Amino acid sequence: MELAGLKYLVVGAGLFGAVMAERIAADMGERVLVIDRRDHTGGNCHSTIDTETGIERHVYGTHIFHTAHARVWKYINRFATFNSYRHRVLAMVDGRAYHMPVNLLTVNDFYGTSLRPWELHAFLAAEAGRDATKTPANLEEQAIALIGRPLYEAFIRDYTRKQWGVDPRRLPAAIVTRLPVRATCKTDYFDDPWQGLPMDGYAATFSRMLAHPLIDVALGVDHADIRERIPEGCTVIYTGPLDRYFDHRYGPLGWRSLEFHEEIHLVPDFQGAAVVNHPAPDVPWTRIHEFRHLHEEREHPAAATLIAREYPRELCTAHPEPYYPMRLREDRERLALYQRDAHAETRTIFGGRLGTYAYLDMDTTILQALEAYDRLCERLGTDWTPPHHRPERPVARG
Amino acid sequence: MELAGLKYLVVGAGLFGAVMAERIAADMGERVLVIDRRDHTGGNCHSTIDTETGIERHVYGTHIFHTAHARVWKYINRFATFNSYRHRVLAMVDGRAYHMPVNLLTVNDFYGTSLRPWELHAFLAAEAGRDATKTPANLEEQAIALIGRPLYEAFIRDYTRKQWGVDPRRLPAAIVTRLPVRATCKTDYFDDPWQGLPMDGYAATFSRMLAHPLIDVALGVDHADIRERIPEGCTVIYTGPLDRYFDHRYGPLGWRSLEFHEEIHLVPDFQGAAVVNHPAPDVPWTRIHEFRHLHEEREHPAAATLIAREYPRELCTAHPEPYYPMRLREDRERLALYQRDAHAETRTIFGGRLGTYAYLDMDTTILQALEAYDRLCERLGTDWTPPHHRPERPVARG
Ligand SMILES: Cc1cc2nc3c(=O)[nH]c(=O)nc-3n(C[C@H](O)[C@H](O)[C@H](O)COP(=O)(O)OP(=O)(O)OC[C@H]3O[C@@H](n4cnc5c(N)ncnc54)[C@H](O)[C@@H]3O)c2cc1C
Ligand SMILES: Cc1cc2nc3c(=O)[nH]c(=O)nc-3n(C[C@H](O)[C@H](O)[C@H](O)COP(=O)(O)OP(=O)(O)OC[C@H]3O[C@@H](n4cnc5c(N)ncnc54)[C@H](O)[C@@H]3O)c2cc1C
Repeated sequence: MELAGLKYLVVGAGLFGAVMAERIAADMGERVLVIDRRDHTGGNCHSTIDTETGIERHVYGTHIFHTAHARVWKYINRFATFNSYRHRVLAMVDGRAYHMPVNLLTVNDFYGTSLRPWELHAFLAAEAGRDATKTPANLEEQAIALIGRPLYEAFIRDYTRKQWGVDPRRLPAAIVTRLPVRATCKTDYFDDPWQGLPMDGYAATFSRMLAHPLIDVALGVDHADIRERIPEGCTVIYTGPLDRYFDHRYGPLGWRSLEFHEEIHLVPDFQGAAVVNHPAPDVPWTRIHEFRHLHEEREHPAAATLIAREYPRELCTAHPEPYYPMRLREDRERLALYQRDAHAETRTIFGGRLGTYAYLDMDTTILQALEAYDRLCERLGTDWTPPHHRPERPVARG
Repeated sequence: MELAGLKYLVVGAGLFGAVMAERIAADMGERVLVIDRRDHTGGNCHSTIDTETGIERHVYGTHIFHTAHARVWKYINRFATFNSYRHRVLAMVDGRAYHMPVNLLTVNDFYGTSLRPWELHAFLAAEAGRDATKTPANLEEQAIALIGRPLYEAFIRDYTRKQWGVDPRRLPAAIVTRLPVRATCKTDYFDDPWQGLPMDGYAATFSRMLAHPLIDVALGVDHADIRERIPEGCTVIYTGPLDRYFDHRYGPLGWRSLEFHEEIHLVPDFQGAAVVNHPAPDVPWTRIHEFRHLHEEREHPAAATLIAREYPRELCTAHPEPYYPMRLREDRERLALYQRDAHAETRTIFGGRLGTYAYLDMDTTILQALEAYDRLCERLGTDWTPPHHRPERPVARG
C-alpha cells in the first residue's frame, strides 16, 4: 500500500466513502486510495450469498434502498438496476400480524372496530384522553398522550425497551413529538417514489462503484495504524467513528449494537414478509428478517429459506459494531465538542453515519457525499473545471 | 374529414388504435386518420379532471398501468412518466377490511387463526374437504373444492353473482380451475415489476401519442357511417366490436356493462384506498373507487374527495357500453364464426378488446398493437426498411 504522493485517502469503503472515491476518480480524475478495517467493501450495506440456500443475506441487517431525491436516484442507477420490491412491515402481537407503522387497518384490527379514515384521529384522541397526564414527563407518557395506552403497550413499550435497553419511562418525552399514525389503509413502510433492491446485490453495486482504475482499495487496514504515514498534503475523507478519530478525548459517543442469529428453515416461506417486528416482551429478538422476499425476481430454493433474528445489544467487546447512535443528552454534549474539533481539521472531511454520529439512510448518505464532493470542488478554486461541464464516464453493467 | 387517397384508417382512438396510429405516423411516415364515435380519445382509459375537487376521475373505472413486458414499458414511457402508485385491493365484509386476492393475512384475519405460510394450503384443503363434492358440477362447487365454503361465501359467491348477474351455481366449473390464494403476506394486487399512473393523466398521455403531424383525429364519427366511403386500397385498423363490423350476422357477442355513480364527500379520505370491493349481497355496488389515492404526488383538496360506486349492469339501451366479455358457450361459438370471417378481410386488421372480444389489460393491448404493427411492416415486403433501423422521433413531454 503506497501512501507516498497520495492526494486523496478515503477511510471506510461504505457508501459515503465509495461515492467520494468514485467522484474523485471518475470526475476529478485523481488517484484515490480507499482503506477499510473490515475485509470487505460496502460498509453496513454489505451482502453475501448464503452457500447452502443461494439466498443473498444482508450481513448487517435488511437494507432497502428508497429515496425521493432525483439526484441520488440518478446517481445510484449508474451502478445498479433496482428491482420492484416494496417494503412493508408487519408486527406480530399474540399470534396476529398487524401493519406497521400504525394505520387505519392496524387500529381496526387491534380494536375490532370499523372506523373510517376521518374517524381515526378522534378515536385515538379519546383513547389517549382516558390516561392523560397533564405534561408528559417521559416517552411513555408522551406516547400514551398521542395514541393511547393499549396501542402503546402492544407496539411500542416493549419494542422500545428491547431496542434501546432502557425503560421508556426513563427516556425523555421529547423523543416522540409525533408518532406516525396513518389515517389510511396504505401499508407501504416508505413513502418515497423510488424503492427497491439492487438486482445483482449490494456487493456487485459497490464493486462497480470502486472499479475505476484510479481507485485502489486496501482492506483490513485501520486508519489508526497508518495515520502517521499519511502525507502532509493529502485530503482525508474520514467515515470512521468521530470520537475514535480524536482518540475519545471527550469520552465515547454512545451507540447501540445488534447481533444477528441466522437459521435455515426447510419451508418455502417462513413468515411471508421480509421483515416482521416482534414487540412482545417475552420474545428476546426485535425483528426477524427473511431475505428471500427481497428478491422475488430470483430463483430461490423451493423448500429452504434463510432467516436472521435481530437482537439489540449493548456496545461492548463482544458486540463491537456501532449500529444506532444513542444520542442521549451526554452524547449530544460530547458531539458538540467533537464537531468543533472536526471543524478545525481543514485537511479532513468527516462524513457518513459514523463520521457525523447520525442515523443516515442510504440515500441521505449518498446525497451528503455528493454535496461534500461539490464543496471539495468549490474549495479547489477557480482553475477548476466544474464537474458538470465534463462528460461522465459510462459504467459497465455486470 | 378527407377520406380520398387515405392509406391508413384507424377505427377507435383507444389504446390499440392510438399505438397503431402513432407507429404508422412516426415510424412508417405515413398519414393516418383516427376516428372514434365518442367525443374523446383514450377509449376506456379516458380521464378528466373533476371541476369541483380538481381530482382526476377515470371515466370508465380505475385504470392502473402494470406490465412485465420491457418492450411495452419502454414504449409507453415515451409518452408518460409514471408515478409510484402500487395497487392493493381491500374487500369489506361485515365492516372489516380484508386483503384481496386472498392471502395468508386474509385467511388469518377471517378465521382468527395464526397460520404460518407453509400451513395455509393444508388448512384450506381441510376446509374444502368438509364440503367436498366428488366432481364439481358448477362454479360454486369448484370454488368450494378449492378454498372451502366460508371463504367462498364471504368473498366470491355474491360478488360473482353481482358482477355477472348469474347465480354461480349456473356457471360452469371450468371458469375457476385455480383460485389465486397466496401463501404469503404480500398485499400487492399485481405482481408486475412496473406499475403506476401517468403523472399528468391518461388524457395527456393520449394527446402526446396522437400529436404527430401525420395523424388526424376525427371524433364523433362512427365507422358504420363512413365505411362505404373508405377508399379501395385503404388498410383499416378496426378496434370496434367484432360482431358489429359484420352487422351481427351470427348474433351478438355477450358483454357485461357497468354504471358508475359519482359522489363528492366532504372528508379528506373516504375509504383509505383507491379500490375497495364490496362482496356482500345486501350492497348493490361491487366496488367503490376513490381516485385521489391514485395520485399521492398531487395536491388534493384537504376536505373533499371524489368516489364512484360501480354497479354491474346488463348491456342494453340504457347501458350500452360493453365492459367485460361474457364468453359463455354461445359467445365462444359465435366468436369462432366471426374470427373466420375476420380472417378473410385481408384489408382490415382487427385489434383491441372489442375487436378481438377479449379482456385485455392495457399492457397486453399495447403489446398486441406493437406486434400487429410488426406484422403490417412485414407484409409490406422487402423494399421496406425495418422500423428498428430508423431513428425514433423524440417526444415532447408536457
Ligand atoms: C440495522 C440497520 C438497517 C438499515 N437499513 C437501512 C435501509 O433499509 N435503508 C436505508 O436507506 N438505510 C438503512 N440503514 C442505513 C445504512 O446502513 C447507512 O446509510 C449506510 O451504511 C451509511 O454508510 P456509511 O458509509 O456512512 O457507513 P458504513 O456503511 O458504516 O461504512 C463505514 C465504513 O468505515 C469503516 N471504518 C470505520 N472505522 C474505520 C477505521 N478506523 N479505519 C478503516 N475503516 C474504518 C467501517 O468498517 C465501514 O465499512 C440501516 C442501518 C442499520 C444500522
Ligand atoms: C372496468 C375496467 C377496468 C380496467 N382496469 C384496467 C387496469 O386497471 N389496468 C389495465 O391494464 N387494464 C384495465 N382495463 C382494460 C383496459 O380498459 C383495456 O386494456 C383498454 O381499454 C383496451 O384498449 P382498446 O383500444 O382495445 O379498447 P377501448 O379503450 O375500448 O377503445 C376502443 C375505442 O373504439 C371506439 N369505437 C368502437 N366502435 C366504434 C365505431 N364503430 N366507430 C368508431 N369508433 C368506435 C370506442 O368508442 C373506443 O373509444 C380495464 C377494463 C375495464 C372494463
